[in-house]
Amino acid sequence: MIIGIDMMGGDYAPLEAVKGISLYLSGHRIPASLMLIGDKTKIETLLAEHKVPLDHLKFVHADQVIDMQEHPTRALKEKKQSSIAIGFHLLATGKMDAFISAGNTGAMLVGALFSMKALEGVIRPAISTIVPKVNGGTGLLLDVGLNADCKPEQLNQFAIMGSVYAQLILGIENPKTGLINVGEEEGKGNLLAQAAYPLLKENKHINFCGNIEGRDIFTGKADVMVCEGFTGNIILKMAESLYDISHHRQVKDEYFERFNFENYGGTPVLGVAKPVIIGHGISGAKAFMNMIHLAQLMLGKNVMQKMKEELA
Amino acid sequence: MIIGIDMMGGDYAPLEAVKGISLYLSGHRIPASLMLIGDKTKIETLLAEHKVPLDHLKFVHADQVIDMQEHPTRALKEKKQSSIAIGFHLLATGKMDAFISAGNTGAMLVGALFSMKALEGVIRPAISTIVPKVNGGTGLLLDVGLNADCKPEQLNQFAIMGSVYAQLILGIENPKTGLINVGEEEGKGNLLAQAAYPLLKENKHINFCGNIEGRDIFTGKADVMVCEGFTGNIILKMAESLYDISHHRQVKDEYFERFNFENYGGTPVLGVAKPVIIGHGISGAKAFMNMIHLAQLMLGKNVMQKMKEELA
Repeated sequence: MIIGIDMMGGDYAPLEAVKGISLYLSGHRIPASLMLIGDKTKIETLLAEHKVPLDHLKFVHADQVIDMQEHPTRALKEKKQSSIAIGFHLLATGKMDAFISAGNTGAMLVGALFSMKALEGVIRPAISTIVPKVNGGTGLLLDVGLNADCKPEQLNQFAIMGSVYAQLILGIENPKTGLINVGEEEGKGNLLAQAAYPLLKENKHINFCGNIEGRDIFTGKADVMVCEGFTGNIILKMAESLYDISHHRQVKDEYFERFNFENYGGTPVLGVAKPVIIGHGISGAKAFMNMIHLAQLMLGKNVMQKMKEELA
Repeated sequence: MIIGIDMMGGDYAPLEAVKGISLYLSGHRIPASLMLIGDKTKIETLLAEHKVPLDHLKFVHADQVIDMQEHPTRALKEKKQSSIAIGFHLLATGKMDAFISAGNTGAMLVGALFSMKALEGVIRPAISTIVPKVNGGTGLLLDVGLNADCKPEQLNQFAIMGSVYAQLILGIENPKTGLINVGEEEGKGNLLAQAAYPLLKENKHINFCGNIEGRDIFTGKADVMVCEGFTGNIILKMAESLYDISHHRQVKDEYFERFNFENYGGTPVLGVAKPVIIGHGISGAKAFMNMIHLAQLMLGKNVMQKMKEELA
């Protein structure tokens, strides 16, 4: 198992990635092999400074970096020697099994969509976010931005992919899966939600629990919640802002603390053949460690294979 | 100026409506005339019990009540003697100038849409909600549920109606008006947002400030925020649930306290010829008082006339 890491991605690269790797290696009995992609000299110096053991590390030098503000498609095309472009090349050619980056999100998404194969039958991949629930549990919301406009059948696929992920990664048995909507009853909603409801209702691969209104997003009503990427992205960014607000206002509350997305590391792209995990630009050491853990868990639990079976 | 009140709407009817009227009358030097629609005997008994002066009150008896769970269209058709049906009849025939109810929301919306005239040129009316901003200010979000699917031109009209409302009722000079979207730059978003952006940009009746992401909804980036009613409804209900959560968890924070929607009374239907204000089912005395104040303010400031001019 080889997990590739873009060492140059994120606001604090490559330092926080190095510290994250150090945390990961010291906390794991049987660590995966890590492939570190980026400025080799810089990385080796930092590894030495932080006394990180080298046994599980491989290095691939990358001359270029895609900056956070660059246009994704253009940057991927023009910077063939960037850590992200090299990462996707290594992933696509079977040189590694998963790829992690806290770099340019758009470039990561474009790379995942166009240099990787989608799982058989998947119309379009999706990205998800963890939703802290007031009852202490954890939910999953998808899509949160890859598909601003969707067809009903896509929401149905999100439901299947989300259910598999919730079961294998979040450890939720037979996850309740709901449709984000503006009312409780069948027939409510915009044209998309109205058309998606019957598909979800008849879907034997999920445990459908009906419509989920805005007020139910943080309750235990559903474990997996599906919507198009427009609404999902608004919900995600609102939820993220809640942490900033409560932090800034010094609200010391355990629940609002759980909106600190660094706890969750990064978001995986679901529906592609291999784990691709995208971190926040502000990812620190803990986030990097968590992303490596997540990639290892996804590989270990054979998440992609299971999705493929359920989608068939 | 005659403001009609559905005395039978809401979970605590007619008691909380009576108490709200009492608060309103005792707090206002020159109160409007109020037309109380509902079970006359019950209402008169409660008014006497609460020693409410009768000088500014008129009564219209209504035999029937539309329950909270009834199907809106059917109920309005079958219960011609209900307080809501009578209220809309009085409003449409010029017997009163505004109508307030905390009753069946669907019936109020159907009544507003089909028994009232829309303002000239308005494709469809919208409903809005107040959004507490972390900087202490107050924003306006619309549509929050009347139009689950929209055309770009509708969002453009929401922007105009919202700007007029923000200026005249919320007292915000030249309100910054933004488009709810998934990214900052022009060209981002779903097909609707992509098509609405240039319309808003060229709209001389508003002060367009660009795209508003989920993380900016609670900041001061925009005063008026427009979207279709699907996304808007999800945002509204999420925001409402924040108050419930912080209340339940005993988070004593001034900002989260402001998500108590009882403070704001009710939501007006924008784009119809006369003020129609819809309260929460759980409206208490304070909410009723605030709704009467709001109706009076909307009439006094000529909000509908001003919208008509700006939309022309």
